[in-house]
Amino acid sequence: MIPFKLSEELIAQVEQLIEEKKDTVLLELLEELHYADLAEIIDELNLDEATYIIKLLDSEKTSDILTEVDDDIREKILENLSAKEIAEEIDELDTDDAADIISELPEERKQEVISELEDKEHAKEIVELLRYDEDSAGGLMAKELVKVNENWNVLTCVKEMRKQAEEVTRVHSIYVVDDDDILKGRLSLKDLLTTSTRTNISDVYIPKVDYVNVGDKAEDVAKVMSKYDLEAIPVVDEMKRLVGRITIDDIVDVIREEAEKDYQLAAGITQDVEADDSIWQLTRARLPWLFLGLLGGIGAAAIMEGFDKMLESYSILFFFTPLIAAMAGNVGVQSSAIIVQGLANDDIKGSINNRLWKEMLLAMLNGIALAIILFIVVAIWKNDPIAALAISASLVVVIIVAGIIGTFIPLFLDKRGIDPAIATGPFITTSNDIFGILIYFLIAKLIIGI
Amino acid sequence: MIPFKLSEELIAQVEQLIEEKKDTVLLELLEELHYADLAEIIDELNLDEATYIIKLLDSEKTSDILTEVDDDIREKILENLSAKEIAEEIDELDTDDAADIISELPEERKQEVISELEDKEHAKEIVELLRYDEDSAGGLMAKELVKVNENWNVLTCVKEMRKQAEEVTRVHSIYVVDDDDILKGRLSLKDLLTTSTRTNISDVYIPKVDYVNVGDKAEDVAKVMSKYDLEAIPVVDEMKRLVGRITIDDIVDVIREEAEKDYQLAAGITQDVEADDSIWQLTRARLPWLFLGLLGGIGAAAIMEGFDKMLESYSILFFFTPLIAAMAGNVGVQSSAIIVQGLANDDIKGSINNRLWKEMLLAMLNGIALAIILFIVVAIWKNDPIAALAISASLVVVIIVAGIIGTFIPLFLDKRGIDPAIATGPFITTSNDIFGILIYFLIAKLIIGI
Repeated sequence: MIPFKLSEELIAQVEQLIEEKKDTVLLELLEELHYADLAEIIDELNLDEATYIIKLLDSEKTSDILTEVDDDIREKILENLSAKEIAEEIDELDTDDAADIISELPEERKQEVISELEDKEHAKEIVELLRYDEDSAGGLMAKELVKVNENWNVLTCVKEMRKQAEEVTRVHSIYVVDDDDILKGRLSLKDLLTTSTRTNISDVYIPKVDYVNVGDKAEDVAKVMSKYDLEAIPVVDEMKRLVGRITIDDIVDVIREEAEKDYQLAAGITQDVEADDSIWQLTRARLPWLFLGLLGGIGAAAIMEGFDKMLESYSILFFFTPLIAAMAGNVGVQSSAIIVQGLANDDIKGSINNRLWKEMLLAMLNGIALAIILFIVVAIWKNDPIAALAISASLVVVIIVAGIIGTFIPLFLDKRGIDPAIATGPFITTSNDIFGILIYFLIAKLIIGI
Repeated sequence: MIPFKLSEELIAQVEQLIEEKKDTVLLELLEELHYADLAEIIDELNLDEATYIIKLLDSEKTSDILTEVDDDIREKILENLSAKEIAEEIDELDTDDAADIISELPEERKQEVISELEDKEHAKEIVELLRYDEDSAGGLMAKELVKVNENWNVLTCVKEMRKQAEEVTRVHSIYVVDDDDILKGRLSLKDLLTTSTRTNISDVYIPKVDYVNVGDKAEDVAKVMSKYDLEAIPVVDEMKRLVGRITIDDIVDVIREEAEKDYQLAAGITQDVEADDSIWQLTRARLPWLFLGLLGGIGAAAIMEGFDKMLESYSILFFFTPLIAAMAGNVGVQSSAIIVQGLANDDIKGSINNRLWKEMLLAMLNGIALAIILFIVVAIWKNDPIAALAISASLVVVIIVAGIIGTFIPLFLDKRGIDPAIATGPFITTSNDIFGILIYFLIAKLIIGI
């Protein structure tokens, strides 16, 4: 396959054709492209051009495009469309995508669009999905699925399935329910095709079926599906009634978003921002963490001032504060990152004490190795073994403390039900800077004896 | 579903039953569990207990368990098994998982195990897969797939498909090839079921089919599959012959691993380590980055010594070096993280210059906001507006430079074909520490005029 590659020439060509209103040529050019590629093109156009294309192409294609374009761009395009036009797009979408788009609309627009939906059954299902939290199984699931009643025979089942399958893009499993819609099990396509048509479903279905509850967290659904290698999972309500189905492609998005969020938090960025977001959005995501760093720095300055008697004879101690702060920060980030990742993967078992012991041992080994190098450098450079000893001995202690703090804080936050990912990045570096510098001067003072 | 939860009681119970050799009770207990859950149990047992369980359960289940346990534990268990026993496990696995496990064995063991494989066709396919790089499409794909010849009619096709489908766990698509095995297109199950049995396949297949080349990078396959929401994709060789198929569950693993690698690099951890790895493995992954930080700290100390004339009258400048270093580091990490993430998602378009301008503007805004606060604090605290001005003015410059370095380095590395993720974390914080402190003292000196 020659992968689609967005080029400036293509964008220029599309813009030219829009300007000259050459609709036939434009349609010919765009028709061949996948909706995900079209979304990339639209992301690069200005609002009027984007709206022009959305109105030009038919809604079967544009509805899919809308699900793929950037959030900000979708918001603006939808503002340019009438409620009826939006409803036409929504009518083409599966219930999960439809609900996602409607939920982004302003409250009164929502009502308008819903009342314009043509397929009332579809509308009812979308409204149901709007009730669920977007980070829950209910928020991820679609209503489209293939289900059969345990009391049917294979013949009825095949007939009904054909009807249902029309609406379902990909059939992963056929779910079996009872008269009350309660999930009983699943059927394999293979069994269905090789069984006599008069057999009862209740005699052939597999009663063992994985499922999630409608209120389960999206993150947990992702864990279950990827652990058990599932491509789709049914969702049940509090009464175990089958209410929807989640497919693996939605889970791929959840996994990506989770990873990006953790990555951004580790880098000191809140909220879900992208390189192309506005300066204002980026500032809101970054400034609070920088402010935290500023406070930490002022704290560190205050601590250093408290030790200013050492300035005269041991000014070298002050030259090494950035080193101490950097090492404390680095070790803290390393140990917290390993714990945060382990927690995310459910890999952290056993007691907190064992973890802390292990990290302490590890930090001690690393600290001693680094301290030996530092001692040699400073002793030779300054010809002052006492200062060299003071600096390198306190480096060992600082590294051990930083490792323990980096291990303990995410574990503690996790136990308290707080996302441990906030403990990586600026939070840990700032607190480790302060503790590191304080410990450093205290130990140095002890060794030097001033 | 009541999710499986690994408990210390369960582990204790299993260990007890192994010790007492109560095989029947043990089998009864373990039979009900999913292989992924059994793998979690085995991860917690000692080697003898783990081997005991692998030998107890039948190879249909243990083969799947082996694909799920920790790499280190699998390695040790396999050392405890004979080549014949390993071959029995491999015989049960799909070609992709089989090749993954065999590729981890020592060279001569590999040969032994392969020669013990019972199914020679299977063995041939596994050997073929062993040739491919593990980070390529060839390394991800399995040989199991359903393919039909374009010259067959629907009836032959259905018969052949049934045969092939026995070996394929999940049928996603039926691929259509010509007599030379060259990929021509795909067939939908739905069409197949609704077409007359004498129709020729060439009349009904869909010629448009996404595919990847056997040498494509795993990362790129992941991008294509998640962009186009594919659940499986065929793999072709240089002659466009169909050679395998990649399914979405393997891609989920690729996405997870990519994200974890980037996250670890940002935290200053090389290699793929986990919280449960040995202290030696963790040290090897962490110490090099700490050493880099140490060098940076020594550099910073040398710079500060160069400005030691200011110590007497403006010792306050030295108290604020940790603040300057921390801010330079934080800003650098923030801007590099956004760029690295944008590059990973193919979101970074347009010129480097525009990016740098934007980052400069952003850093300036953030810098000025923080500098105002800092100025007020220092001016009041020290009653020295000149020192306050020197510190806060240089903070602005340091933040701007840090932002530019953080933006430029990953973009530069990416252009050079180097993974930009190494530019986040210690690499950027260390270089920003040094540059930051140097700029800080130079500007302070200029303003104070010593």
